[in-house]
Amino acid sequence: MVEIIGKMLAGNKFSAIKEMLSEMNIVDIATMMEEMEPEDQVRLFRLLPKQSSADVFSYLDSDIQSVIVDAITNTELKFLMEDMFLDDTVDFLEEVPANVVTRVLAHTNPETRKLINKFLQYPENSAGSIMTIEMVSFPENYTVHQAIDEIRKTALDKETIYTCYCTDSKRKLVGTVPLRRLIVAPEGTLIKDIMYDDEQLISVNTLDDQENVAAIVKKYDLLSVPVVDKEDRLVGIITIDDIVDVIEEENTEDFEKMALLHPSEDQYLKTNVFTLYKNRIVWLLILMVSATFTGQIIEGFENKLALIAGLTGAIPMLMDTGGNCGSQVSTLIIRGIALGDVKITDYFKVLWKEIRVALLCGITLAIVNFVRMWIIRSVTHSDVQLNTFIVICLAMICAVIVAKTIGCTLPILAKMIHLDPALMAGPMLTTIVDAITLLIYFSLANVFINAGLIAG
Amino acid sequence: MVEIIGKMLAGNKFSAIKEMLSEMNIVDIATMMEEMEPEDQVRLFRLLPKQSSADVFSYLDSDIQSVIVDAITNTELKFLMEDMFLDDTVDFLEEVPANVVTRVLAHTNPETRKLINKFLQYPENSAGSIMTIEMVSFPENYTVHQAIDEIRKTALDKETIYTCYCTDSKRKLVGTVPLRRLIVAPEGTLIKDIMYDDEQLISVNTLDDQENVAAIVKKYDLLSVPVVDKEDRLVGIITIDDIVDVIEEENTEDFEKMALLHPSEDQYLKTNVFTLYKNRIVWLLILMVSATFTGQIIEGFENKLALIAGLTGAIPMLMDTGGNCGSQVSTLIIRGIALGDVKITDYFKVLWKEIRVALLCGITLAIVNFVRMWIIRSVTHSDVQLNTFIVICLAMICAVIVAKTIGCTLPILAKMIHLDPALMAGPMLTTIVDAITLLIYFSLANVFINAGLIAG
Repeated sequence: MVEIIGKMLAGNKFSAIKEMLSEMNIVDIATMMEEMEPEDQVRLFRLLPKQSSADVFSYLDSDIQSVIVDAITNTELKFLMEDMFLDDTVDFLEEVPANVVTRVLAHTNPETRKLINKFLQYPENSAGSIMTIEMVSFPENYTVHQAIDEIRKTALDKETIYTCYCTDSKRKLVGTVPLRRLIVAPEGTLIKDIMYDDEQLISVNTLDDQENVAAIVKKYDLLSVPVVDKEDRLVGIITIDDIVDVIEEENTEDFEKMALLHPSEDQYLKTNVFTLYKNRIVWLLILMVSATFTGQIIEGFENKLALIAGLTGAIPMLMDTGGNCGSQVSTLIIRGIALGDVKITDYFKVLWKEIRVALLCGITLAIVNFVRMWIIRSVTHSDVQLNTFIVICLAMICAVIVAKTIGCTLPILAKMIHLDPALMAGPMLTTIVDAITLLIYFSLANVFINAGLIAG
Repeated sequence: MVEIIGKMLAGNKFSAIKEMLSEMNIVDIATMMEEMEPEDQVRLFRLLPKQSSADVFSYLDSDIQSVIVDAITNTELKFLMEDMFLDDTVDFLEEVPANVVTRVLAHTNPETRKLINKFLQYPENSAGSIMTIEMVSFPENYTVHQAIDEIRKTALDKETIYTCYCTDSKRKLVGTVPLRRLIVAPEGTLIKDIMYDDEQLISVNTLDDQENVAAIVKKYDLLSVPVVDKEDRLVGIITIDDIVDVIEEENTEDFEKMALLHPSEDQYLKTNVFTLYKNRIVWLLILMVSATFTGQIIEGFENKLALIAGLTGAIPMLMDTGGNCGSQVSTLIIRGIALGDVKITDYFKVLWKEIRVALLCGITLAIVNFVRMWIIRSVTHSDVQLNTFIVICLAMICAVIVAKTIGCTLPILAKMIHLDPALMAGPMLTTIVDAITLLIYFSLANVFINAGLIAG
């Protein structure tokens, strides 16, 4: 496709290209443009039907958006900005270089410019920063006939017309009415008689976190949610397509935090080496330094480790098993908290569940491990004492219980003290569990040695 | 709220309760019911306005649904089933015990029963299994006036009316038209002149995986997507609210797989101890047994470890750092693959990026580690030889490079051979990286010992 268009562009077959573009989905056009050379991108953009160029532009990556804005005339730019939805304009301006922003603002009308500046000031990830102002709203004392008439007239400039918002004389949000209700209602009915109000009216505040907005939209299966300011005045809406993006963004952030990466909003392939380094190194350093404790524990026991065959070799297995058990439960709990299934008040329920699971897992692992070590001992004719195996297996059971306990406690504790539970996943947990596992292991070994059950 | 309603129920204040319920959002009613005693749940359900009881029922958990179905009469059941959307009915039947299913099917009309049976047979996670049949469709040769008339008449029984579907005489899907386009078009226009068709018509097949359906809906920002059978006949639609659930489900599955948990569709708190045990133990066993290699590597080197101070203590730090580095990159790549940002063909780009990041991270970690060990040595007056530190720091750099290389290779390799990349995350990777790290570490130590740079 890209090649065909490229050849057509080279051959100046503009009318054929226009014909083709008018038949294509705007998302497909944007996807196709991303694979083209910069000069072709600009040429193709200019061939787009006027009414769809703003839509296609919204779907482009910010680097291509910059290229296009650099290449088009001020008149074209003005037209483009007027045709775009405000949330897309703000998204675009947040990503491009300052000189592009300046030029764009210079070529929008003063009213829009004021609005854009206001939107750019909403805190990152707030409802205000992702909302748009192109909604359908009318006074609650309109009739159904008046309302539908209003919708007909303005439908094409609105981000959605499927939920309409009703305001009182002070622009306060007093109700919502789905288009579906309007369409089946008799023409003379007053909007205030069919709108959802009071208990049923769902709205968010400009400063609400986008994660909470997403949770509300998911819970109530909404197509859009109204955004109000401190005085309950309707200032914008957030539509489901933006909520889907928020959901994926928040999930990505959780994945990143669980692997102790500094969250980044850029795609992997577009992030440069130094940024990747920066996003990773801090946690790596912290964790490495905290492994000092584990090292010290081992060094404190080094003489005995050297004397008794088989003890050192079990260290990685105990550490890995503890870490794996901890990861499993912390992942489940973190995800449960994120989806709202697990609450702080469920802690004791969770703990009691995990202790039982830990016992089952620990005993199974210990038995299999004993058999495994026995077989290796027989095959290799080693002289490891059987009681050493018992120490290792007992340590295994304790390690699993400790790992599961800490694994379910840390995320809930984090939630309690308003930290992000996702930080308490794998790597962080492993470091803590490792140290405790080794302490238990060496203490058990000491008990056996002092009781004369293992000989040095 | 739950307490108030409980008291009102106890006091038989039915008309007041009915009044209250009619003012509440159905999702809130369902949430509230989940916290009530079973007998109150049934009593409250019977007080619901007729037109919203099916909606509330769809939002309830399957255990409460079972309780209610057990308690209501056959006539009530019949009414409930006729009023529910087919996708909700199928969801409900998939979760409840067989005797409930039998009773429900016995009390639906033969036509619906046939449909339900057909839907239950679609493979799990296929488009067919999550679609619904309550869509608006009309022949392409309708006029706008006819179409809007049809929508007005049937709107209340449809899952969505905001995208309508156009069929030819053989029920084949030939186009879609958003309600927005209908509303602004002149009444006499033919549907086929304003519908999206050909290139712009987006549909999925009944057997398509729900993950792919979600990707399409996300890409094109759709509110619903039509589902066609093998002959391109329109058989159903999938709406955005169900797609949002699919997105969260697929994300949860990835989280679980990355922690090597057997994926489960149930909420954590509702899963019993034995199921949790079963979902976790297999991978724990596999990983524990595979730690045999790491153990063997250590045991093979045990004599030298015992002779030279400081070598054993560094084992956990090297293992942890390798594991952490690997987790970070594998998480980024797995997420990139899931979101479509990273493709198999990007492998060499990724690898080249990771090697450079690894060098930066490795050198930083090695330097900080050297300083750290130096300080500890000075403070504790230990007699660890400086060359031992050099071995440890060199091993650290190699471990980071190996971890990052394997961490970006495994997920892409998994994708190539059609395994799930999410399986190649943390725990799995750690086991492999651990063994290689230790091999490198001991080999380096051996070189230094043989060259006389470290004395035993």
